[in-house]
Amino acid sequence: MNPKPKLLKRVNFHPSKKGLSSETPIYTGIHSDVATTIEVLTYDEHSCSIKTISLDEFKEWKPLDTYQYWVNVTGINNAENIKTICEKYNIHILYQEDILNIYQRPKIDEEFDYIFCAFKELRWLDASYTIEEEQYSLVLMKNTVLTFQEAGGDAFDQVREKLKTNNSYYRGKGVDYLFYRFLDITIDNYFDILEKLGQRLESIEDDITLRVRNEHQTDIQDSKKDIMQIRKNIVPVREIINKLLTMENPFITDKTKKYFKDVHDHILQAIETTDNYREINVSLKDLYISAQSHEMNKVIKVLTIISTFFIPLTFLVGVYGMNFKYMPELEMPYGYYAVWVVMFLIVIFLSIWFKRKGWF
Amino acid sequence: MNPKPKLLKRVNFHPSKKGLSSETPIYTGIHSDVATTIEVLTYDEHSCSIKTISLDEFKEWKPLDTYQYWVNVTGINNAENIKTICEKYNIHILYQEDILNIYQRPKIDEEFDYIFCAFKELRWLDASYTIEEEQYSLVLMKNTVLTFQEAGGDAFDQVREKLKTNNSYYRGKGVDYLFYRFLDITIDNYFDILEKLGQRLESIEDDITLRVRNEHQTDIQDSKKDIMQIRKNIVPVREIINKLLTMENPFITDKTKKYFKDVHDHILQAIETTDNYREINVSLKDLYISAQSHEMNKVIKVLTIISTFFIPLTFLVGVYGMNFKYMPELEMPYGYYAVWVVMFLIVIFLSIWFKRKGWF
Amino acid sequence: MNPKPKLLKRVNFHPSKKGLSSETPIYTGIHSDVATTIEVLTYDEHSCSIKTISLDEFKEWKPLDTYQYWVNVTGINNAENIKTICEKYNIHILYQEDILNIYQRPKIDEEFDYIFCAFKELRWLDASYTIEEEQYSLVLMKNTVLTFQEAGGDAFDQVREKLKTNNSYYRGKGVDYLFYRFLDITIDNYFDILEKLGQRLESIEDDITLRVRNEHQTDIQDSKKDIMQIRKNIVPVREIINKLLTMENPFITDKTKKYFKDVHDHILQAIETTDNYREINVSLKDLYISAQSHEMNKVIKVLTIISTFFIPLTFLVGVYGMNFKYMPELEMPYGYYAVWVVMFLIVIFLSIWFKRKGWF
Amino acid sequence: MNPKPKLLKRVNFHPSKKGLSSETPIYTGIHSDVATTIEVLTYDEHSCSIKTISLDEFKEWKPLDTYQYWVNVTGINNAENIKTICEKYNIHILYQEDILNIYQRPKIDEEFDYIFCAFKELRWLDASYTIEEEQYSLVLMKNTVLTFQEAGGDAFDQVREKLKTNNSYYRGKGVDYLFYRFLDITIDNYFDILEKLGQRLESIEDDITLRVRNEHQTDIQDSKKDIMQIRKNIVPVREIINKLLTMENPFITDKTKKYFKDVHDHILQAIETTDNYREINVSLKDLYISAQSHEMNKVIKVLTIISTFFIPLTFLVGVYGMNFKYMPELEMPYGYYAVWVVMFLIVIFLSIWFKRKGWF
Amino acid sequence: MNPKPKLLKRVNFHPSKKGLSSETPIYTGIHSDVATTIEVLTYDEHSCSIKTISLDEFKEWKPLDTYQYWVNVTGINNAENIKTICEKYNIHILYQEDILNIYQRPKIDEEFDYIFCAFKELRWLDASYTIEEEQYSLVLMKNTVLTFQEAGGDAFDQVREKLKTNNSYYRGKGVDYLFYRFLDITIDNYFDILEKLGQRLESIEDDITLRVRNEHQTDIQDSKKDIMQIRKNIVPVREIINKLLTMENPFITDKTKKYFKDVHDHILQAIETTDNYREINVSLKDLYISAQSHEMNKVIKVLTIISTFFIPLTFLVGVYGMNFKYMPELEMPYGYYAVWVVMFLIVIFLSIWFKRKGWF
Repeated sequence: MNPKPKLLKRVNFHPSKKGLSSETPIYTGIHSDVATTIEVLTYDEHSCSIKTISLDEFKEWKPLDTYQYWVNVTGINNAENIKTICEKYNIHILYQEDILNIYQRPKIDEEFDYIFCAFKELRWLDASYTIEEEQYSLVLMKNTVLTFQEAGGDAFDQVREKLKTNNSYYRGKGVDYLFYRFLDITIDNYFDILEKLGQRLESIEDDITLRVRNEHQTDIQDSKKDIMQIRKNIVPVREIINKLLTMENPFITDKTKKYFKDVHDHILQAIETTDNYREINVSLKDLYISAQSHEMNKVIKVLTIISTFFIPLTFLVGVYGMNFKYMPELEMPYGYYAVWVVMFLIVIFLSIWFKRKGWF
Repeated sequence: MNPKPKLLKRVNFHPSKKGLSSETPIYTGIHSDVATTIEVLTYDEHSCSIKTISLDEFKEWKPLDTYQYWVNVTGINNAENIKTICEKYNIHILYQEDILNIYQRPKIDEEFDYIFCAFKELRWLDASYTIEEEQYSLVLMKNTVLTFQEAGGDAFDQVREKLKTNNSYYRGKGVDYLFYRFLDITIDNYFDILEKLGQRLESIEDDITLRVRNEHQTDIQDSKKDIMQIRKNIVPVREIINKLLTMENPFITDKTKKYFKDVHDHILQAIETTDNYREINVSLKDLYISAQSHEMNKVIKVLTIISTFFIPLTFLVGVYGMNFKYMPELEMPYGYYAVWVVMFLIVIFLSIWFKRKGWF
Repeated sequence: MNPKPKLLKRVNFHPSKKGLSSETPIYTGIHSDVATTIEVLTYDEHSCSIKTISLDEFKEWKPLDTYQYWVNVTGINNAENIKTICEKYNIHILYQEDILNIYQRPKIDEEFDYIFCAFKELRWLDASYTIEEEQYSLVLMKNTVLTFQEAGGDAFDQVREKLKTNNSYYRGKGVDYLFYRFLDITIDNYFDILEKLGQRLESIEDDITLRVRNEHQTDIQDSKKDIMQIRKNIVPVREIINKLLTMENPFITDKTKKYFKDVHDHILQAIETTDNYREINVSLKDLYISAQSHEMNKVIKVLTIISTFFIPLTFLVGVYGMNFKYMPELEMPYGYYAVWVVMFLIVIFLSIWFKRKGWF
Repeated sequence: MNPKPKLLKRVNFHPSKKGLSSETPIYTGIHSDVATTIEVLTYDEHSCSIKTISLDEFKEWKPLDTYQYWVNVTGINNAENIKTICEKYNIHILYQEDILNIYQRPKIDEEFDYIFCAFKELRWLDASYTIEEEQYSLVLMKNTVLTFQEAGGDAFDQVREKLKTNNSYYRGKGVDYLFYRFLDITIDNYFDILEKLGQRLESIEDDITLRVRNEHQTDIQDSKKDIMQIRKNIVPVREIINKLLTMENPFITDKTKKYFKDVHDHILQAIETTDNYREINVSLKDLYISAQSHEMNKVIKVLTIISTFFIPLTFLVGVYGMNFKYMPELEMPYGYYAVWVVMFLIVIFLSIWFKRKGWF
Repeated sequence: MNPKPKLLKRVNFHPSKKGLSSETPIYTGIHSDVATTIEVLTYDEHSCSIKTISLDEFKEWKPLDTYQYWVNVTGINNAENIKTICEKYNIHILYQEDILNIYQRPKIDEEFDYIFCAFKELRWLDASYTIEEEQYSLVLMKNTVLTFQEAGGDAFDQVREKLKTNNSYYRGKGVDYLFYRFLDITIDNYFDILEKLGQRLESIEDDITLRVRNEHQTDIQDSKKDIMQIRKNIVPVREIINKLLTMENPFITDKTKKYFKDVHDHILQAIETTDNYREINVSLKDLYISAQSHEMNKVIKVLTIISTFFIPLTFLVGVYGMNFKYMPELEMPYGYYAVWVVMFLIVIFLSIWFKRKGWF
């Protein structure tokens, strides 16, 4: 759905925000055709209901204290709508800007009455070998988690399914548990990306070993940019989780913190894997260069060998092409055949010499 | 307006300050023709007036407690004038030196009755592919922000426009909010520079892929120096904002601090982008070297192929150029044509061999 | 027993876990055929008894306060069984997942009533030059240490033997001492791996010095991956031991902490050795490249020398192959012999010249 | 005055100290011919007198509390004299050793009744392109600053001149202000060195771009060593100033500390410039290698082009040098001219081909 | 006395310890023939007596409180003896292991009633260009310092000599001063090693500049390993001294701590020198590669020049070797001489062309 972006853009930011006041939020993404829909999931330990409501209904809507709410907003291209929703929850205008700016660095911020968190889901577009990013913004409040997404993502679908299931243990837990699940599923997806990248690195390696081609240079370059793009998106997630673990905050219970410790392990592993891929990528570059120069050496050797065979022979036939009046060999009846024998001996001798040098 | 400086100078400092006591401030920049003008913006929640006053008027001028003041000084080449202005606000002589020395590293310093801050605006001079720097110095005091600039810059113009607008929310906020806006606009401009640099890196990459030329080496070298120049100017800004966030200071309200947190995100992103560009630049160098050696390989291959075709042929014609008395082939009626056939067969054989080697 | 895995996999994670909730533990390893066996070692200062019991017996089994227990579970492919065992000790479901996920990063976690620790044993599979990993999970509780392993490992065998021996000083010490022994033996095994890796690096170096071959590139690449695999597994162990040393915990006595200080020394040394190997590996790559280019230089020199000898000679015989009517040399009776003398002198001259250039 | 030292020595230490007890101070420098002279500058707010006194006079001399004293010792080759001077002020024997050992790392140490500080002045010897070091040792006490130098240095001359000037603001300040001035002038001199180094790097770059020569390798190597020498001397100065800023000490007033903050900025800038030069030096190496290989490529191309032109032509004339009885072309009246035409066409064809390949 | 070990071993650990319990100390060194001798130096401010006593005497021996004791044990190959000696002073079995394991990383540990410290003396074996290590273990107690060494080292001899001297200021100081002297002399010896290494690097540089040879690659490789070996042994010594400086401990007086501050300076300088050598070594590698490729370039140039001279000449003589019936030049009386003139002109032309290209 997303056309393959130019490579450099991928490690970049969006230019269109430049020069605008941070106080005038504007949508910076590409999904400008997705209308804003508000989905409210109301649940307690025993029940869960889902309904999609209009913005006007939402404005009037009053949540109850006895339920937990997950309010999921899809389609963030209309800044006005987002503003209306945010203002209902008294979310500061700077976070409204963060929600709309999909080039936002992943981050978490603690306010008096809510926690704001933004991170990226990464998806591999197989057709174009591109990594697509989708930004998730979450606001965790007492009894409510408010989420924003551009077009509809994997992590949210999975959690919604679970909540709908009767007897799901999701229901018995607070909204902070949902928050944990969003992060956890997203990070698990990172491993999916990393695995595919690993397979690609492996196939490049196999390919180069088989037969080096000039395009491998581009492949390695591309992989490097993919690794940079991934790093850029997952390293800040470690900071997010570190902050979550040290936060003293009523919105995240100690019970859920234990889960974040587990997520912390996963993100560390994802980062280490990325770093390992980076090293492997460097190795591939070395392998490529070495394979290239090996190819070159073979070419040079062929030239050397052919030259070395023919140069003395050509000299020899040149000798007997001279027009001196007195050249006794020319008069000999078997002189011509003798020359062939001599040339044959030269070839034999050179063959043995090259064999011993290991050039064959 | 600024002649393209030598490349090394750009990552350098100004030499003319050497040996001078820090206590004798001297202007080190190039705008020695801009006269000092003092512009006073007086504003409160409901009104805003701007007037340009002379130095003498300024000396006599008494600000009132009920207004906020932005005193903007343009043209800092006259050390005496700057001294007079600074002394009115009891600014230490060392900061006077910092204001005049445009090679000053970006920094912030907290004093008992003011905060001094200096940073650089970066502008891309399209004509000469050079990054121009202009130093901004700010002194934040109770109800007053005092700013110094060499020649007139983008950030100040934007803020002035906003203040002049009726009902601007700028008016209802303190001078610390102005300070935030200066920093924010300047950092947004960094993204502008970075975007242009990114486009240049991208075009170098495309160019090399298309057809490598020796000048690309210089382009890559130049980009590296640009990246170094940018880094040198923006990395200290992160320190400035870190200090701002941890400062316990009456001049910066908690409300404004929230905005600096947002700026902090932006500067982190700018630094990360710069670091990514640095890595991309290294990749470009690799790409360049690899492309060069690929070109070279092609040349060598042509030589090899041509030699390999002609060397045996030349030998063969040499053989029948020999003057032996008894060479039966020479007497044969179709000997000459037979030689051509043999040579043709050799060419065929070599063509097949090279094809299989993949050298064509 | 373990087929040689693809190289990249080795520095990777297991993909099959992707998308699963962390709350649904699943075994991710390859030993899916090892049945779960529970072995209980009951010991105090004077006695030690070992028995293997079934899962049902284990459920009923009640440990006494006067003994120390080591409960060793081999075969973790059945998630249900592991769950039953863990629930007897109230071990959190997240740790159950860690026990089953053999791609778990080595870690330690402190809970109110137990310490959970997971690390890897490394073994060198000589046949395939592969490093096999086996994950150990340990739960240290009051009077009991609970261990999990996939298939049966070296560290556990050694400790069991010691415990069975009469008058072993193991018996007089707490279960934390057993914990120390597991870690200590495992780390000693790391040195075993490192030594073998060192020998391999050394043999690659000797080999390259003797006669460089293209396969050395692959050998160096492989060694690098081995070093990365080792690093990945032992660096987190340093963190484990650091945490152990700073932990304030009733399960680890001060007496045992002294031993962990010793283990800390060993792991530091193992990490330093690994880092040294990494540097040596880089040196080997340099050596390889240098040896390759030296080979190449020799080939080029041979070409140069042969060409340089024959090019003037071939020219000379060409001269006397010309068909001019008036060429006085051709008429001279000893002209032919004079040409040979001249050519001989040219060879002599060039030999001396090359000798002085040091090209022979 | 200083003969150009071997390059490696410059990043080294002095060997003659080896094996000596630290308690037997010995002079390790080269200025063994400079006699010890003691110069006493007595000053208060209104007056300043300078006199040079002998060692014996110095022993008897009693400073008054109402004046500030700067005691400057030039010529430190006589360990006995230095000992006598130091003992008058109860300076520990270890600092006596530091004063004499000019290979001392720059450092600062706080004692109960004095602060000891040692750092290096760097001077560029234009004749030999060498950086000369001179060690300054300072002891800051109540009302007195005691300085030691090998031969007479720039920083001291400047301060002396200022003090001698009537109405100098130096006089009204404490000895800690002198200490600040010594450091400040020395660090300003670092910029002088850095500027010259920068010019040299720039000229190497220009030179390589113009026409690469093998000597550039040595120039780059030398610059690297210069950068290392500078780094070695200025990085510890940052530590000195950091310590000065955090010191709680009666000898350094808060007023002077403000100046050290300024010096801190300068030293940071000097270190950053050095680091930038290091990166530029690496770039130069890359540029050199690239220029070298470009030269090489041009040579190879010439060979290729010449060979490719003549190889087919030489073959052709070889063909008509054959001695077959029946070669119809040889009998044709215009055969000879036809061959020239054919050869001319070959040259035309190859020229066009090469043009299109971009090899001309 | 020590045969030159394999290079990789030098940056390695000893393998024979593997699999042994840390509780079964075993000697891991090579001096298995040095019998254990115990030397007791009894001294106070005025006297010093040295006697060598047997193990049995030592067991019975009772030190007095009024004297200071240095107990020096040479020859540590007999684990039983060492155990007996250590048990007299209640030294923990883990330290006994450290004393015997000469592959121990340098370290310091603080116990309630003693400080244990182990570090290495480095000696340069000139004959084999190898760095020999000898481990020193020290136990510092109240009034007693207990030292262990394998075979007899430099640092101990020097201190013994000083103590024996009448009126030595060693006598008036505590055993912590002896400890300081051991460390200080050992670190001074590091400079000795570094100086020799520096000379070697310098001679490699001179050699390469003069005439690059393939063996230089090995020399540079060896130097790198030497630098790694030195680093491995001296970097932990910095940690030792850092710990010593921050230790709150009755065994080390404040007076002696002042000396350790001095030692700290020295070890920092040693580490910096090592790091500089590491950088220089990298430079040497670059120099080597560059010199190699320069050699290569020269060879290629010779080939090019010779070919470029002879290729057109050979073509020309080929032309007049053709057998066309009608070739007017062949009939000209001075045709042959004219060809020589033409060839001479070609040589002249090419010489000028090459001269201008700078290839001569």
